[in-house]
Amino acid sequence: MTRTCVFIPVAVSSLFVGACTNQQSEAPQSLARPGVILIIGDGMDDQQITIARNYLVGSSGRLVLDGLPFRAVAQIQTVAENDPTQPLYVADSANTATSMASGVVTSKGRIATTAQSDEDLTTIMELAHASGFGTGIVTTSSVTDATPASFVAHVNQRLCQGPSAMVRTNRRGRLSVDCSQDYKANGGLGSIAEQIAASNVDVVLGGGSRYFEQTIEGNTEMSVIDAASANGYQVIRERSELEQLIPGSKVLGLFSPNTMPVQLRGVNDAEAVTVERVDGEVRLPEPFACEPNPGFEAMPTLADMTHAALNELDDHDGFMLMIESASIDKQSHLRRPCGHVGELQQLDEVVGIALEYAQSHPETLILVTADHSHAAQIVEETGGPFIALNYASPGHFARLRTMEGGIMGINYATNDSPIQEGHTGAQVPVFASGQNVHDLPAFMQQVDIFHIAADHLGLSTAAPRE
Amino acid sequence: MTRTCVFIPVAVSSLFVGACTNQQSEAPQSLARPGVILIIGDGMDDQQITIARNYLVGSSGRLVLDGLPFRAVAQIQTVAENDPTQPLYVADSANTATSMASGVVTSKGRIATTAQSDEDLTTIMELAHASGFGTGIVTTSSVTDATPASFVAHVNQRLCQGPSAMVRTNRRGRLSVDCSQDYKANGGLGSIAEQIAASNVDVVLGGGSRYFEQTIEGNTEMSVIDAASANGYQVIRERSELEQLIPGSKVLGLFSPNTMPVQLRGVNDAEAVTVERVDGEVRLPEPFACEPNPGFEAMPTLADMTHAALNELDDHDGFMLMIESASIDKQSHLRRPCGHVGELQQLDEVVGIALEYAQSHPETLILVTADHSHAAQIVEETGGPFIALNYASPGHFARLRTMEGGIMGINYATNDSPIQEGHTGAQVPVFASGQNVHDLPAFMQQVDIFHIAADHLGLSTAAPRE
Repeated sequence: MTRTCVFIPVAVSSLFVGACTNQQSEAPQSLARPGVILIIGDGMDDQQITIARNYLVGSSGRLVLDGLPFRAVAQIQTVAENDPTQPLYVADSANTATSMASGVVTSKGRIATTAQSDEDLTTIMELAHASGFGTGIVTTSSVTDATPASFVAHVNQRLCQGPSAMVRTNRRGRLSVDCSQDYKANGGLGSIAEQIAASNVDVVLGGGSRYFEQTIEGNTEMSVIDAASANGYQVIRERSELEQLIPGSKVLGLFSPNTMPVQLRGVNDAEAVTVERVDGEVRLPEPFACEPNPGFEAMPTLADMTHAALNELDDHDGFMLMIESASIDKQSHLRRPCGHVGELQQLDEVVGIALEYAQSHPETLILVTADHSHAAQIVEETGGPFIALNYASPGHFARLRTMEGGIMGINYATNDSPIQEGHTGAQVPVFASGQNVHDLPAFMQQVDIFHIAADHLGLSTAAPRE
Repeated sequence: MTRTCVFIPVAVSSLFVGACTNQQSEAPQSLARPGVILIIGDGMDDQQITIARNYLVGSSGRLVLDGLPFRAVAQIQTVAENDPTQPLYVADSANTATSMASGVVTSKGRIATTAQSDEDLTTIMELAHASGFGTGIVTTSSVTDATPASFVAHVNQRLCQGPSAMVRTNRRGRLSVDCSQDYKANGGLGSIAEQIAASNVDVVLGGGSRYFEQTIEGNTEMSVIDAASANGYQVIRERSELEQLIPGSKVLGLFSPNTMPVQLRGVNDAEAVTVERVDGEVRLPEPFACEPNPGFEAMPTLADMTHAALNELDDHDGFMLMIESASIDKQSHLRRPCGHVGELQQLDEVVGIALEYAQSHPETLILVTADHSHAAQIVEETGGPFIALNYASPGHFARLRTMEGGIMGINYATNDSPIQEGHTGAQVPVFASGQNVHDLPAFMQQVDIFHIAADHLGLSTAAPRE
C-alpha cells in the first residue's frame, strides 16, 4: 500500500540528523555512536499509567516515567485488509508495531507486510543493521509475538509464529488463518521463529521457546534453536546465563515456553469479576491487594534483560534497541489488574535504566510509547457514579487496595466475552528523553516513531517497498 | 485542609514571572497586559479527543488542538470528605475545577471550599481581579454549574445553584445535600447564582437563567437578575445582544434555562443502546451519523461567546478567562456520541480563536485541559475483539458512521444504570501555547494549572486559606 502518513515531521528530521552529526554537541566523540532505546508498553494508555501510579506510588506520587522531559501523543492508524483505503478505528499489536517498525500503516494481524498486497516492509532493525548499528529486541512476551516480530520478520499473519503453524489452518475466533503463503517452499520467509533464527539481530531476549523447539521446515532433524546456533546465536535459557554471555556473539535468550510470567498477581490470585445482585442490591466484590506471582521468581526481570542487552549493544558503534513490556496488554485482556500494574512497574524500572545509560551516553534517544489503548478504566469503587449508588459495572470489576491505603475501582467492559477484553482506539502517549526532544511535535502519528528513530540514527529511509 | 500538592513547578514560576516582566520580549509594551485563556473540555480525555478527530477529520486528520505546540498530562487528585487524608481515584467537576481555580485539592461536590473544614478558597479570578485584571467565565453549561462556579463562588455543595436550592434538602441519589450552611442568614455567601450576581467577574456567559430568575434570599421582590443589574451587570438573554454590549459594563449573558443545547445529535436523535441477541447471535445496532441539533440554532456558539468575551476583556490591562466546553461530559454521561463530538468541535473552534487572538497579543498564555476522564471508549465496531466475533459491549454501544466513511464503535459501560455513565480516573491532557511553554513540565498535577496561570499573570499566591 502507499504511505498514508500525511504528517511528516520535517522539522524533526533535520533536527535529529543534525543532532547525530554536528551542532550543539559537548561530546563530539560519542556522537558517532547514536543509540535509540524504544520502550513499548503494550496497551499502556493513560488509564493504565494512572492505575499503576495510583497503586504503586499513590495519586500524589510520581513514576519514573513521569519524570521524562517530553510528552506527546500518537494517533493510531489502521486500514482494512480487504480495502486498504478504508480506516479502522481499533488496532492490534501487529499492525501498530508494523507502523513503528516500518513507518507504514497496514491491516490488523500483519507483521511488517503491506495490507492486501502482502509486500515485505523494511524495518528499522534491518536499516540499522545495514548501516552497521547493533540491534536488539527485548520483550516479556514470546519473541515471536506481534510486537517484537514486526521489527524482525515479515509474514501475513501474526499467528504464523513457529514452523508448526505454517502447515495447518489456524483459527482465530471465526476466522481461519492460513500461513501457507509464507511457507519457504512457497517462496516465503518461513515462520516468525525461523526468521528470527536467520536474522542479524544481535540481541533477542524474551519468552517463546516452544516455537524454537519445533523442527524447521523441510528438516525433521534440526530445531529452530539449532538453526539459530548455526547462524551464530548463543542460545540461553536461564536467567543466570545472562551474566555469562560470550562477548561479540549474537544472543538468543528464551526464558519461558510462551509469554513470561508476570511480576504481580492479586492476593490469592484475585482478579476482576462480574458484579452480583442480591435482592436487587449490588454486592460489590471484596477489595484486594497485589502479591508477588510465584511463577515470576525464576524469570529474569525486564530490567535484567535490558541491562544485558545494553551491555551487548554498548560494544557496537550505536544501536537500535526495542524493549517491550508486553503483559500490560495481556493482563488487561484477562482482567487482572495486579498483572498489568506489575508489568507497568517493570517498564518503569526499565525507563530508569535507560535514563541512567543515557547519562553516560548522551547521544542516546529514549522513546517510550504504547501500541494501542486498552480496556481497563478507573471507575468509582462504590460501583456507580455519585448519583446512582446501587449500580455497578456491567462487565468485570475489581476493587484494588492501593499501597497508600485507598480503594481503586477498575472496570473491564469492552465486550461480554467470558474469556477476554478487547483493545480500545484512543491515541497513545509518547514520551522522549534526549538531546533536543523538545523540538519533537506534540502530536504525531504512530508511523512517526519510525521516522524519529531512523533520523536519530541517520538512517536512509527511502520509500519502503510497496 | 493542607495543600497536598507535592510537586510545585518552581521552574515554571520563575519562567512565567520572567515572561511577564522582561526577557525575550519583542513587544515590551504588550507585556504589561498578560492574558490567560484557560479552556476546559469537561471530560475531554484521550478517548474523547480521538473520537472527535476520527469523526470530524478522519483518523489521518488533525484537529486545531493537535497543532498546539506543547502537551503534558495532569494527574487528578481528590480526597474523601469524611477523611481528607484519604485519596479517592475518581473525581467530579466540582473538586477538579476547584483544584484548577484555587490550587487546592478538595472533596467531590465542593465549590472552592476545603474538604470537611469548609473554608473558602481564594480563586484565580479573585486574585486576578484584585490585581486589576479583567476576568471572564464562558461556558456551555449553566454558569452556576460546577466548573464555572468553582472559579467564582464558594459553597459546600455544587447543587446549591440557586436560591431555591438553599431552603430545601436536595437529593443526589441516596445522598441528601444540605445547602443551609451557605444560607446568608447562616453567615454563608448564598447560592452560586447569588454569588455570581454579587461578583466582580467582568464577563459571565452561558446557560442557567432559571437560577437567576428565582428571587434572592430574604427578598421576594428581587430576582437574582435584578441583583446582578444592581451590581452593574448588563444582563442579556439573546445571541444578537452579544454584539450590542455596553463598553466598560460587566456583562451577564444567560442564553438558556439550563445547559445550552449541543451542536450535534445522532440522525433521528440516535444514541448508544444496549446490544440485543437473537438466538444467541449478537444483533449489532445500525450505524448512524450526526446531524445538526435543532435546539442549537438559536444559541450563540461557544465561539460567539468567546469572541464577545475577548472583545470585552481586551479593554483591560490583562485578563484571566476561563472557557468551558461542558457537554463533552454531559453527552458522554447520556451515551450520546454525536453530542460529545459536536461539543468537542466547539472547543476546537475556540482553540483556533484563542490562537488567532494570541497572534496579535503574544503575551497570551493558552492552556487547554480537561477536568477528568470519562466513560466513552472506542471499541471494535463489530462488537467484539478479533477472536470473539459474537460478543459485544455489556453496556451501551453505538456504531458511528464517520465523515471519512468508516464505522467507529463507541462503548459506554462504566455502570449498569439506565440513566447515565460515570466518570473515569485517568490523568488528563494539558495543552499549552504561548511564550516558553516548552519549559512547562510534561507531567503535572491538576493544581499546577492554577500556579501556571497565576505565575503568568504575576499574581501573588500566598498560601490559600486553610
